[in-house]
Amino acid sequence: MPAYKAPLRDMNFVIHELLEAEKIFQTLPSYEEATEDLIGAIIEEGAKFAEEVLSPLNQSGDEEGCSWSEGEVTTPQGFADAYRQYVENGWPSLSANVESGGQGMPNLLSSVINEMAGTANWSWLMYPGLSLGAVNTVEAHGDAEQKDSYLKKLVTGEWTGTMCLTEAQCGSDLGLLRTKAEPQADGTYAVTGTKIFISAGEHDMAENIVHIVLARLPDAPAGTKGISLFIVPKFKVNEDGSLGEHNNVHCASIEKKMGIKASATCVMNFDGATGYLIGPPNKGLSCMFTFMNTARIGTAIQGIAAAELAFQNSLAYAKERRSMHPLSGPKSAEHVADTIINHPDVRRMLLKQKAIAEGGRAMLYDAAMLADRTAYAIDEKELSEIDDKLGFLTPILKGFFTELGIEAANDGMQVFGGHGYIKEWGMEQIARDVRISSLYEGTTGIQGLDLLGRKVILDGFKQFRAYNKRIRSFYTRYIFSSAYRWKMLRFIWPLIAYQLRWYIVLLTILLKARKNRDAVGVSTYDFLMYSGFMTTAFYWAMMAHKAMEKLDKGGDEPAEYYRAKIETATFYFERMLPRAKAHAAIISGSLESVVALDEADFSFE
Amino acid sequence: MPAYKAPLRDMNFVIHELLEAEKIFQTLPSYEEATEDLIGAIIEEGAKFAEEVLSPLNQSGDEEGCSWSEGEVTTPQGFADAYRQYVENGWPSLSANVESGGQGMPNLLSSVINEMAGTANWSWLMYPGLSLGAVNTVEAHGDAEQKDSYLKKLVTGEWTGTMCLTEAQCGSDLGLLRTKAEPQADGTYAVTGTKIFISAGEHDMAENIVHIVLARLPDAPAGTKGISLFIVPKFKVNEDGSLGEHNNVHCASIEKKMGIKASATCVMNFDGATGYLIGPPNKGLSCMFTFMNTARIGTAIQGIAAAELAFQNSLAYAKERRSMHPLSGPKSAEHVADTIINHPDVRRMLLKQKAIAEGGRAMLYDAAMLADRTAYAIDEKELSEIDDKLGFLTPILKGFFTELGIEAANDGMQVFGGHGYIKEWGMEQIARDVRISSLYEGTTGIQGLDLLGRKVILDGFKQFRAYNKRIRSFYTRYIFSSAYRWKMLRFIWPLIAYQLRWYIVLLTILLKARKNRDAVGVSTYDFLMYSGFMTTAFYWAMMAHKAMEKLDKGGDEPAEYYRAKIETATFYFERMLPRAKAHAAIISGSLESVVALDEADFSFE
Repeated sequence: MPAYKAPLRDMNFVIHELLEAEKIFQTLPSYEEATEDLIGAIIEEGAKFAEEVLSPLNQSGDEEGCSWSEGEVTTPQGFADAYRQYVENGWPSLSANVESGGQGMPNLLSSVINEMAGTANWSWLMYPGLSLGAVNTVEAHGDAEQKDSYLKKLVTGEWTGTMCLTEAQCGSDLGLLRTKAEPQADGTYAVTGTKIFISAGEHDMAENIVHIVLARLPDAPAGTKGISLFIVPKFKVNEDGSLGEHNNVHCASIEKKMGIKASATCVMNFDGATGYLIGPPNKGLSCMFTFMNTARIGTAIQGIAAAELAFQNSLAYAKERRSMHPLSGPKSAEHVADTIINHPDVRRMLLKQKAIAEGGRAMLYDAAMLADRTAYAIDEKELSEIDDKLGFLTPILKGFFTELGIEAANDGMQVFGGHGYIKEWGMEQIARDVRISSLYEGTTGIQGLDLLGRKVILDGFKQFRAYNKRIRSFYTRYIFSSAYRWKMLRFIWPLIAYQLRWYIVLLTILLKARKNRDAVGVSTYDFLMYSGFMTTAFYWAMMAHKAMEKLDKGGDEPAEYYRAKIETATFYFERMLPRAKAHAAIISGSLESVVALDEADFSFE
Repeated sequence: MPAYKAPLRDMNFVIHELLEAEKIFQTLPSYEEATEDLIGAIIEEGAKFAEEVLSPLNQSGDEEGCSWSEGEVTTPQGFADAYRQYVENGWPSLSANVESGGQGMPNLLSSVINEMAGTANWSWLMYPGLSLGAVNTVEAHGDAEQKDSYLKKLVTGEWTGTMCLTEAQCGSDLGLLRTKAEPQADGTYAVTGTKIFISAGEHDMAENIVHIVLARLPDAPAGTKGISLFIVPKFKVNEDGSLGEHNNVHCASIEKKMGIKASATCVMNFDGATGYLIGPPNKGLSCMFTFMNTARIGTAIQGIAAAELAFQNSLAYAKERRSMHPLSGPKSAEHVADTIINHPDVRRMLLKQKAIAEGGRAMLYDAAMLADRTAYAIDEKELSEIDDKLGFLTPILKGFFTELGIEAANDGMQVFGGHGYIKEWGMEQIARDVRISSLYEGTTGIQGLDLLGRKVILDGFKQFRAYNKRIRSFYTRYIFSSAYRWKMLRFIWPLIAYQLRWYIVLLTILLKARKNRDAVGVSTYDFLMYSGFMTTAFYWAMMAHKAMEKLDKGGDEPAEYYRAKIETATFYFERMLPRAKAHAAIISGSLESVVALDEADFSFE
C-alpha cells in the first residue's frame, strides 16, 4: 500500500525560506496572525490528518469505489467518518473569509493542506474540494438571504457544494448547454436538464448538497451570453434554516471510471427542481470565470501530488529491491545484486519525479500567495493586476503540472518493473487517478489555448513581459551582484538562453498567425509545455540560489537538504529543461504539416 | 465500445509496395507459395476473425476479468470459444516449420495476424502468443521423444505453453533465481519453487499446458551460469500420447492488475513437479536468449496495436463530436460548433497516433522479414549476421514503440476529453492495457541497456554502422539519382542531420564512459529514444518516397492514400522527430547530475 509522509521540510523551505511568506502576510490586513509558528502548527496537524486518516483509506477507497442505489450514493468505508473529523477540526473554513464564518487564514495554507490531503487521498479530497466553487459563487454573487441560507453551512463544511456545468453534448464549449430555468410565480425558477460529470453530486458525507447550476432563462440569447447561475439545493432550506423537502434533483447514475473511483462522478437529473437565481441574469459565465483560476490551480495540485506520492513510494522500493550491478561495478560487496537505486536509469526516474514534485510545489505556493494578495488588494486596479498575474500562471500550473504529474506517476510505476502493474503495490492507482487531471477543469488543449490565446496574445503580452521581467530581475539583481555569480552560472546561462528562445517561439507563432490564425491553435500545446519547462526552471534556479545562501550561513540546519536541492536543480537543468528545445523546434514546423491532410483521408480500410 | 477495422490498405502497402515481400520470399526455399494472392487471402481471413470474433470480446473481457478458484482459472465468456475457432482454423501453426506440423508460411504473416488479433483484443492474444516460446524451445533443444510428446500439440494449438522465468525476488536479473530441480532415479527431475507473472499459466482454453521452467540443478554454479531448462507439463503425457495424471504444478493465485485483465497472470507453485531436462544442463539462459528477439518483437506489436486502436476510435469521435470553432473561423456554417477534428490541436493528437501506428508497422514488418531470412540462412555466418541485424532492431522496436504506444493511447483518451476517462467508451482500457508493454519482456530500461550496451558497444558498432549504411544507401542511391531529389529534400536533409547527431551522441557517451562506465547506464533511455525517433524517420522517409513513386505511376489506386502517406511523413518529420533533439541534449548532460546525490539525501521529512 502506498504510504504518504508529508514532506514538511520541503514545504517549510518553500514557504519560509524561498517565498518568505510571513513577511508578506504581515503586510496584509487580517493575516498578521499567520506567523511562522502558527503556520507550522497548522501544517503539522494537517500532515497528521493526511497521513493517519486519509492515506490509509486511499487504496481501500479505490478497491471499494462508490456505489449507487435508487439515487443514493454510498462512499467507501471510512470516507464519511474522515469527513466528519475534517469538519469537526475546522479544516473547511481555514482560509474562508471571517465574515462568512471562516478563519481568515491565508490561501497558501489551504493549498498546503489540500496538497497533503490530496497526496494522501485525491478521491476523498474531491468531496470538500468541490465545495470551493459554490462557496466562492455565493460569497461573491449571493444576496443577504442566500448567504444566510447557504454560505455558513458551506464554509463549515456541514454541507458540500457542486458546480453543475457539463452536459452530454457540451464540455468546454458551454455555449451549447441546454438546461433551462423557467421563472415561477414565487420568484424561484424551475430548473430542468441533465448534467454529467458532477463530482460529489451525491454522497453520504453531508446532510445537504448545494448545487450551483448553469442554465438558460427562457428569453436568454444563444451561446455563452445566455447562461445564468442558479442555486439548487438537494434539500430545500426552510426559513428557520432547517432542512425541508427533497428538491427535484436526483442522481441518475454514477460513472465507471479509470481512476478516482472513490469520488462519485454523478449524472444529475434536474426535473423542474426549485432554483434560485444568483448573480445577474445571463451573466453566469463571467461570474464563473472569476473562480476559474482557483479551480484550475486546485487541479494542478493533483499533478504535484501524484509526483510526490509516486516519488516517495518508488524511492522506498528502489532502496530495497535488488537487481544486477550498475556498469561501474558492484556497490555492495556482500550482496549478489545491488539495490536498484544504484542504477543510473532508476535514479533518473527518481530525480525526475522529485524535480516535478518540488518544482511544482514552489510554483504552486507562489501562485497561492498571489491569490492571497488578490483578497486584500487596495483597489480595483491592483486587484486586476494581481489577478492577471495569477491568470498567467494558472494554465501553466494546471496544464504543465498535470501532464508532468502523469509522467511522474508512470515513472514511479516503471521503477517497480512488472510489480508496478499489480494493484497490490498501489503504484498503478496513482497513474490511474492522476490521469483525469489533464482532462477535467479544461483539458491540456484548453489550457494551452487559454495561455497562448487569452493570457498572452489577448492580454497584449503584458503578463508575459511582466513575468519575464521578474525572471530577469532575479538573475540580474540577485546574481550578477551576489556572491554566487560563478556557482549560479550553470543555472543563469540556460535561464537566459531559454528565456530568449521563449520570445523567439512566441514571435514565430505570431508571424505565422498573421497568415492563418490556426497557427496559434496548432502551437498551443507546445507553447504551454515550453512555458512550463521555462517557468519551472526559474523556480529551480531560485531554489538553488536560496539553498546556496543557506548553506553558506551554516547554522543548525543540516546541510544535506540544501545540497540535495542544488543537485536536484542541476538534474532539472541538465536533464529535463532540454525538452523545451523539442517543443521550440516543433513550433517552428509548418502549419500545413497538421492541417493539410483532408479529413476524409485520415484513414483507409 | 472501441471498434476495430483492420487497416488492410496500409498493411498491403507495407508488405507489397514498401518491402516487396513476395519478391524476397520467392528467393527463400519453402516460401514460394507466399504469393501476393495467398498472403492477401490469409490476411483477409485473419482480419475477419479479429474484427468479428476477438474485438467484441475486448471490453467484456476487461470487465469480467479472469477468476481463480481452487487452482482453476476461468477466462472471460467467449474467450475459450474464440480460441477453439482459432485452433480449428489452423492459425497457431501458420508459420511453424513444416516438419513440426506447421504450415511453413512466413513469420511476417504471423506478425500481421498477431497485430490484428492483438489490436482487437490483446488480452486474448496472450494465451496463444505465449506458446511461441515453448514451441521454439522444444523445436530447437528437445530430443526426438520430447518433440514427439509436446511439439505437435503445441503447434496445432491444442495445448498451450508458458515460459516460467520470473520469481518474486528476480525479474530481469535471472541470476537470482532459486527454483531447484533434483534428479530422480527415473531420469526425470523434481522441480520445486514458485514462479510469478506467468501469463496463461493456467486457463480453461486448452486441455494441457506445457511449462518451460528455468531452474537450478543441485550442483549448478551460482548466477546465470547455473540455470537449466525443464519441460513441466500440467498433465503428464502417457507413452501413447494420452494425458495422464495432474503434475505437481498448481496455480496458487492470479494477479489483480491495472489492465490486460482478461489475461491470467499466474503465481505457479511447483512442488516436486516432474520435469524433463531440455537442452544441455546449465545452459538454459543461452538457450533462452535465442528467442528473446522474437518475444520482444511480439511485445512491440502491443505498442503499435494500441496506437492503431486508439487512433481509429479517437478519429471516429473527432469526426462526430462538436465543440467551438477553430481560431481561423467556423468550418460549417450550419452548426453552432465544429467537429473537433477541425481543431489543430486535436489533429496534432490524431496525426501523432497515426504516425506511431504506421511507422511502427513498417519497422515491425521489416523486422519480421529479417526473422524469415534467419530461418533460411545458408550457413552459420549468414544466420548470425541476420540475427545480429534483428538483434539491433529488437530493443528499438520493443522499447521505443511500447513507450510511444503508451503515449498514443493517452492521446487517444485525450481527444475524448472527460469522456476518455469513462470506461464505457473503452479508451481508458487501451491506455491501461498497453501500460504493461514497457514493463514486461524487459522494461524500457533493460531495452536501453540491451541496445546501447550489447547491441551497439559490445557488438563493436557493427550493426550500428550497418544500419546507418542502409540509411545512407537509401538516400544516396534512391534519392540523389532519382526523380524525387527536390520533393524528398525535406525528408533527406533531416535524415542526414539526425543521423550525424546519432553518431555524435554515441561518441559523447563513449568519451564519458572512458572515465566512468555509468555514463553508459545514465544514457540508455535517451539513446534508445533517440534511436527510435531516428529509425522511425528512416521508415517514414522510405514510405514517403514509395508513395511519391506510386502517385506518379498513377494507375487504379486512388491517389488519396499516397498523399495521406506523404502528409503523415511530413507531420512526423516536422512535429515528432524534433523530440530526438531533446534526447541528444540530455545525453550531453553530466553524469554527476544523476549520480551525485547521496542515496540518503533523496528525501527529507
